[in-house]
Amino acid sequence: MSDYQVRTAHILTRIEQLAAISEDASGATVTRTFGTPAFVRGRDLVQSWFEAAGLVTRLDGIGNLRGRWASRRPGAQTFVLASHIDTVVNAGKYDGPLGVLMGLSLVEDIIQQQVDLPFHLELMAFSDEEGVRFHTAYLGSKVVTGAFDPALLAKTDAQGLTLAQAIVEMGGDAAQIPAGALPAAEWLGYFELHIEQGPVLWGSGVPVALVTALVGQQRVELTWQGMAGHAGTVPMARRQDALAAAAEFVLAAEAFALAPGRGLVATVGQLRIAHSASNVIPSQVVHSLDLRSPDARQLATAYGALHAQAAAIAARRGLVLDWQLVQAIAPVACDAGLNDLLAQAIAASGYPVVPLVSGAGHDVVPASAVAPATMMFIRCYKGISHNPLENVEAADVAAALEVAERFLQRLAVAYA
Amino acid sequence: MSDYQVRTAHILTRIEQLAAISEDASGATVTRTFGTPAFVRGRDLVQSWFEAAGLVTRLDGIGNLRGRWASRRPGAQTFVLASHIDTVVNAGKYDGPLGVLMGLSLVEDIIQQQVDLPFHLELMAFSDEEGVRFHTAYLGSKVVTGAFDPALLAKTDAQGLTLAQAIVEMGGDAAQIPAGALPAAEWLGYFELHIEQGPVLWGSGVPVALVTALVGQQRVELTWQGMAGHAGTVPMARRQDALAAAAEFVLAAEAFALAPGRGLVATVGQLRIAHSASNVIPSQVVHSLDLRSPDARQLATAYGALHAQAAAIAARRGLVLDWQLVQAIAPVACDAGLNDLLAQAIAASGYPVVPLVSGAGHDVVPASAVAPATMMFIRCYKGISHNPLENVEAADVAAALEVAERFLQRLAVAYA
Repeated sequence: MSDYQVRTAHILTRIEQLAAISEDASGATVTRTFGTPAFVRGRDLVQSWFEAAGLVTRLDGIGNLRGRWASRRPGAQTFVLASHIDTVVNAGKYDGPLGVLMGLSLVEDIIQQQVDLPFHLELMAFSDEEGVRFHTAYLGSKVVTGAFDPALLAKTDAQGLTLAQAIVEMGGDAAQIPAGALPAAEWLGYFELHIEQGPVLWGSGVPVALVTALVGQQRVELTWQGMAGHAGTVPMARRQDALAAAAEFVLAAEAFALAPGRGLVATVGQLRIAHSASNVIPSQVVHSLDLRSPDARQLATAYGALHAQAAAIAARRGLVLDWQLVQAIAPVACDAGLNDLLAQAIAASGYPVVPLVSGAGHDVVPASAVAPATMMFIRCYKGISHNPLENVEAADVAAALEVAERFLQRLAVAYA
Repeated sequence: MSDYQVRTAHILTRIEQLAAISEDASGATVTRTFGTPAFVRGRDLVQSWFEAAGLVTRLDGIGNLRGRWASRRPGAQTFVLASHIDTVVNAGKYDGPLGVLMGLSLVEDIIQQQVDLPFHLELMAFSDEEGVRFHTAYLGSKVVTGAFDPALLAKTDAQGLTLAQAIVEMGGDAAQIPAGALPAAEWLGYFELHIEQGPVLWGSGVPVALVTALVGQQRVELTWQGMAGHAGTVPMARRQDALAAAAEFVLAAEAFALAPGRGLVATVGQLRIAHSASNVIPSQVVHSLDLRSPDARQLATAYGALHAQAAAIAARRGLVLDWQLVQAIAPVACDAGLNDLLAQAIAASGYPVVPLVSGAGHDVVPASAVAPATMMFIRCYKGISHNPLENVEAADVAAALEVAERFLQRLAVAYA
């Protein structure tokens, strides 16, 4: 086995050990949401690995695990390697932990090989990226980037516990949150390794992809108000069927996003008919619309065009449409300079450079606001994620490890 | 006021008195489902009216109220005037009671005017047409027509009470059910007056419609199985979106039924996305399809064509379709001879003859199996029914009363 294969086997062993720690007592599924006893046990295990590698560790105010490797260079800035160790409910094993444990492998090797670098490394295991418990994503990286809003401390989980109380319960101290921010002047950059959570690499057979941007998102709630009626007695031509209108819109959104050159995905994931019965013409349908694009202009165009199409459908069918923008997130571009180095590292490792737009959010979003930031995706089984079937090929992890190491080497040269 | 206007005012007063009797103690809504104390109180009131009119009344084994007027003609057969006095939950005031109380007005007038007829009249107030409590419609008319299946006595309501127990609770005797059937040789025919429960007459301004047929119905449950995926990471072209497939089918069914010459209504009234979330591509959608047509051949053609279209949508989109026929009811044609007389009565009263197909089921369905049977619809406010907003215009009731009286006169001539 090559060195990368040996290290990958070690990473994957640790993945299994961490995945065995779950809120689900049976251990049949992986669930470690922010701040729970299982989360703390998992973080303790990862902390023991950080320390065994020779890192100086600490827990910050939001419970992020941080391990620091210091450069001998005077006045060196800090390059952050990070991902998260919280999970969704009934999660896979790799979403988050793979990036943390690959980062640990990279740092372990630097320590063992006594590599010198012109920057400090800080390896971070974020305590909350998924946002499952408090319905607010990136709690961990918001603290590190100084973007944490103290008003969030009053948010409550499903049991009515506030975030402030949850921090106390996990042995933390919310008063230490401001001190967890890495000062702006200290940031050299941010790099994250993460499974793709999409099917592009699986289809292409390439182990890694360079992330060029993260999509912006617009989430809309549409309500179609028509007229209820008896399924047997109201002639077809006299109906104001809210479901038929919604169906027309679902297909219009799909067709719009499928058209060449849109650079867009559009999804209707939730739909509910009010007072539904098989023999009643639907009077009211409420459904979601999730639009994502890496291009703010494309996103705005799609939003406007689909709103107009919805209004036209409502007018033609004699329905009343309510269109509510629920959430708007701007697209984020990854750092071009870091991506140049990453592309070189991928090519030097013998792989084609696959530029990818991330359709999901990641901690690179808050990081981009304070520092050059990028991420690399690792191929995952059929693109399946947030699911126990989530999986990776060891060969792909080994390839990604090699690429990441080359990337750090090139970064060291660039900042020498 | 004309005689018909006076009698209509009387009918509408009784409608209000009966509607004041409800399971809802506040009296704010009308609910008298089969066999409940409110139902019995309501029936007692109607029975007192039957008797005050001079009818000989009885309650049969299923609790139908029956009032008999005897012809002096030896060997006369029986013509049945009927509707139902049970209601849905939160019902209107007219669905059922209007037909019974208009029938009572017709018989009252015959008695008062000492009209002779060559047939007996039996005025029936069916105890269960809606089927709300035991999920089986037409309990009342099934007994009268000899179609009652004793196995139904074991059916339970939401409280676990059997139909047999409910009959005892309302003071009835299930052993008397067979004796409630009118022998086949005694039937001359069946006629029902009922609000339209649809919008055709409201739109046309005509007070009554002749019912030519009652639709057949096919109820299907469709399940589309696609592939879940992240709304951000799965490119549009790689999706197997179960909702998009279902939406395509909803529109296909609508378009098929709208096409000229179909004589069909198609409704998707229920639709559920399994494990739905705004950021997850729907993997499974289950929905209903309700097809109705008065023409068995059209119904079969539509069923086959839509099944084929669904299969084609599934194949094109790479989904698995499950198509389950849940219920199939054959269309029923009303009696042509009775309808000729009814059309003459409508025309003689100065109204255009509007032939209508009933999209809902009525007691004329079981009646048609044993005797010439038909019904006349009365215009109702905006076609609204099964709703407290259900309403009728007094002028339309008066017109319908005049037409019904002319119909009975013509029937008397035809059978003289």
